[in-house]
Amino acid sequence: MEKPALPKGTRDFGPVAMSRRQYIMDTIREVFQRFGFVPLETPAMENLSVLMGKYGEEGDQLLFKVLNSGDFLKDADPSLLSARNSKALTPAIAEKGLRYDLTVPFARYVIMNRHEITLPFRRYQMQPVWRADRPQKGRYREFYQCDADVVGTDSLVCEMEIILMIKAVFKKLGIDSYAIRINHRDVLGGIASLVDAGAAQGTLFTAIDKLDKIGIDGVRKELAGAGWSDKQLDRLFEILSTKGTNADKLDHLYSICTDAGKKGVSDLREILGLLSAYGDSDDHVEVDLSLARGLSYYTGTIFEVKVNDVAVGSVSGGGRYDNLTQAFGSKERLPGVGISFGLDRLYDVLDELGRFPEGQGLSTKVLICHIDAASLRYGLSVLSAVRSAGIGAEIYPDEARLKKQLDYANKKSIPYAVVIGPDEITSGQLVFRNMAAGNQEKKTLDAILDHLKA
Amino acid sequence: MEKPALPKGTRDFGPVAMSRRQYIMDTIREVFQRFGFVPLETPAMENLSVLMGKYGEEGDQLLFKVLNSGDFLKDADPSLLSARNSKALTPAIAEKGLRYDLTVPFARYVIMNRHEITLPFRRYQMQPVWRADRPQKGRYREFYQCDADVVGTDSLVCEMEIILMIKAVFKKLGIDSYAIRINHRDVLGGIASLVDAGAAQGTLFTAIDKLDKIGIDGVRKELAGAGWSDKQLDRLFEILSTKGTNADKLDHLYSICTDAGKKGVSDLREILGLLSAYGDSDDHVEVDLSLARGLSYYTGTIFEVKVNDVAVGSVSGGGRYDNLTQAFGSKERLPGVGISFGLDRLYDVLDELGRFPEGQGLSTKVLICHIDAASLRYGLSVLSAVRSAGIGAEIYPDEARLKKQLDYANKKSIPYAVVIGPDEITSGQLVFRNMAAGNQEKKTLDAILDHLKA
Repeated sequence: MEKPALPKGTRDFGPVAMSRRQYIMDTIREVFQRFGFVPLETPAMENLSVLMGKYGEEGDQLLFKVLNSGDFLKDADPSLLSARNSKALTPAIAEKGLRYDLTVPFARYVIMNRHEITLPFRRYQMQPVWRADRPQKGRYREFYQCDADVVGTDSLVCEMEIILMIKAVFKKLGIDSYAIRINHRDVLGGIASLVDAGAAQGTLFTAIDKLDKIGIDGVRKELAGAGWSDKQLDRLFEILSTKGTNADKLDHLYSICTDAGKKGVSDLREILGLLSAYGDSDDHVEVDLSLARGLSYYTGTIFEVKVNDVAVGSVSGGGRYDNLTQAFGSKERLPGVGISFGLDRLYDVLDELGRFPEGQGLSTKVLICHIDAASLRYGLSVLSAVRSAGIGAEIYPDEARLKKQLDYANKKSIPYAVVIGPDEITSGQLVFRNMAAGNQEKKTLDAILDHLKA
Repeated sequence: MEKPALPKGTRDFGPVAMSRRQYIMDTIREVFQRFGFVPLETPAMENLSVLMGKYGEEGDQLLFKVLNSGDFLKDADPSLLSARNSKALTPAIAEKGLRYDLTVPFARYVIMNRHEITLPFRRYQMQPVWRADRPQKGRYREFYQCDADVVGTDSLVCEMEIILMIKAVFKKLGIDSYAIRINHRDVLGGIASLVDAGAAQGTLFTAIDKLDKIGIDGVRKELAGAGWSDKQLDRLFEILSTKGTNADKLDHLYSICTDAGKKGVSDLREILGLLSAYGDSDDHVEVDLSLARGLSYYTGTIFEVKVNDVAVGSVSGGGRYDNLTQAFGSKERLPGVGISFGLDRLYDVLDELGRFPEGQGLSTKVLICHIDAASLRYGLSVLSAVRSAGIGAEIYPDEARLKKQLDYANKKSIPYAVVIGPDEITSGQLVFRNMAAGNQEKKTLDAILDHLKA
C-alpha cells in the first residue's frame, strides 16, 4: 500500500506545536474575555448561497466546495455534463462549501439570531478557515483565525479597546517591539483628493499598500505606469512622508485636507484622546498614512500590527465597517469594528524570537520506572500518591529494561524519574533521578513529594 | 434576498453554549494532560485514499467529499459523465474528504511520523468530525470527538488508566451516578463457543449489543429469526444474566469457559487488580457480558460509559485494538487502547442534570455606565482601574439613556454596574449598583474595588 500523505497545503500539529498553539490561543482568548467578548462557533460547512459573492470573484474560486451526498448527478443538466462545464455544473452538484473566513459566518449568525442578540454585541471566534490558494511558505489551505468584533455601535471607544486588546495580547506573549499601525478610510480619501486621484482611488490605495514590500521607487513606477504624473506623485510622497509624532502627522494633514479628510483625522485624534483618558498612551501606536488594507470592506479606522525585526508579515489586522449584514441584503444598519489575529504568524514570530515559555505543554513531571512485575504494581501506588499531590505523573506501562524506560523519559523531556525495585520496596527508600542532571539519590516517597512540590 | 440558513445537521454555538462546551473540553483536556497524554491536531481534509475503505461501505458513503479546485471535469471520463454514474465519477472529481473520526487520521499521523515518535505514544485529540448521516435528534453532521489513545503497548495498565481518566472526568464534571461498563472480545468469543454460535458470531454480537434498546425478548426474537434454537437462546441468556459482583461474574464465567474465554476473563481480572494496586476500586465499573461495540475493530477490552437516570445514550466508549496502522498495510504491530468522549452527549447530560457551574463564561463583572460625554471619558479611567484590579469590566461604548445601558447589563447578566454623572465626578462617590438585587449605594472607587475583590 502506498504511504499515506497530507493534502497539499495542510499540516498536522504534533505535541510540541500543539502546546504552543494552545498557549497562543489561550492568551488571546483570555484577553478577548477580559474585554467582555463572548465566544461563538459556527459550522465548518456553510451553504454556498451564504458564501458565494462575498469575497469577490477570486474568492468564489478559492472556496472549497463539498460534493452533495448520494447520487449527485441525478438532476444535473445533461448539456452541462457533455460540455464538461465545471463552473456551471458546480451549483448543481455542490450546495455546501468550507468556511473561508469568520466574518461572513458571523454576519449570517447575527441575521439568523437578531432577536436574541443585545447590541452592542461583542463576539470572539477562533476557528480554522479554508482557502484553495496555491500553497507557499507561510500560506496554507487550512489556517486559524482569531477574531473579535463589536457590532451595533459607532463609538470610537471600541477602536480604543481594540488597541488595548492588541497591547494586552502582545504583553502577555512577551513581544515588546511592535507597531500598531492605524489609518482611516477618510484620511485615504482626503489624500486621494489632494493628489487629484479622481476615479482612480482604488489603483492608488492598492499601490501605496505595497510601500512596505516594493518601496517608494516601486510604487512610483507602478503609478507612473498607470498614467500618474510626476507632479501628482511628488505631491503624494510629500504627504505620505509627513514626519513627526502621531499628533504632528495628524495636525499637518488636518491643515491641508478637505472636509472628508478632516473627519478621518478627527476620528484618529479622538481614538488617541480616548487612550489617554483611559490612562494608556499611544506607545506602540503609529499613524501610518499609507496603510490601506482591503478597502472594499472597511469604511473607517484601519489597523495592522507588525512585529519589528522579524521577517513575518502583519500578525493582526482589522478595521471598522458600516454594515456587517449588508452583503445579506439586510436593511438594518449594523456598524462594527473588528480585529483578527493570525495564529500561524504569531507562532512564527514567537518561534523566531524564542519567546515560547519553557516546558510549555509538559504535563508529566515524573516517570515511575520499575524493574519487575512486583515493583510495577508497587509503582502504581506511588503513581497515585504523586498525582494526588497535584503533580503530573506517568508509569511506564510495560515491563522493560530500565534503560528503555529512562530513554522514554528523556525523549519525552520528563524531568524526573522514580525507580523502584525489590530493595526500594523493602526499604521504602526510592531512587529519585534528575533526568537532565543525570544524578540520583534515595529518598522516601514523602521526601520526593516535598521536592516536587517545592 | 433570501434569509440565510445553516446546512442540515449543523449548528451554531452561541455564547452560552460555547462557554459550556469550553468548560467540558477544558475539563477533559486537563485530565488527559494530567495522565501524560500529549495533544495532536490533524487537518479537517484528508486525502480520500486515506479515508476510503476504513469505515466499511456505509462509512464510505457517509464521507463528505470535497470537489477538486479549478476545472475538475477536465480529465473526467466522458462515458461516466454521460452515464451519470455519480459513484464512479466521484474519485475523478474529488480527491479529498472531511475527517470522519479521529482514529484514522491518528493512524495516518503515526505512519508518517513513525521515526520521531517514542513508544508507547499517548496522544489526545479534540476536534470536530463530519458524517453525512441523516440528521435526527442528538445526531449531527458535524460533532466533536475527544479521544485519547496509547499505542505501542499491550500493557493492561493502560486500560486501568483509562478507567481512572473516565472517573476523573466525571468527578470534575460533578456526575456521580454512572457506570463504566467493560467487557472483552475474548469473553464474547468464549460465550459464542458456549452457545455454539459457530460462524454466526457477528450476528450474535450485533444482537446482544441491542439488549439495552430492545430487551431480552427483542434479542431472542431477532436471533430466533436468524435460526437460533431455543436451547441455544436459553443457554445464552442464562450466561448473560450471571448475577453478583464483578468478581462473581468473572469467576462464574471462568469456571464454564474454554481457554479463549479464560484469557479474556484473566485480562478483566487483571485490570480490576491493577485498579486496586493503584489504591482505587471497581466503584462505577461494571463487567457487562453483553457489551459488544464495533467488534470489527476492537480485539481486547471494550468500554462504554452510561450516565444513570438520563435518557442519553453512551457518553464515552473505546477499547483495545491489535494494530492501529494495519488498515494502511503497515507490517509493524502497533497495539493500543483508546477512549472517546462525546462532547454533545456530555453537554446534554450536564444540561439535564443541571450541573453546569453558575456564571460559566461570564467574564464581565461590572458595566461602567455614564450620563454624558464627560462622564463617559471619566468612566474610561474607572474601567482601567477595575481591569487593573483583575476584574472583568466593560464600558457602555455609546452615549445612551441610562435605562438602555442598565438593560444591556441585565441582558448580558453582568452582576454590577457603576453609574457616573457630573455629581459623581465632583464628589468621587460613584453609584454602585447590584443588578440582581436592584439596589445601589454611593461608594468611592477604592471601596468599589474592595467590594468586587471580596
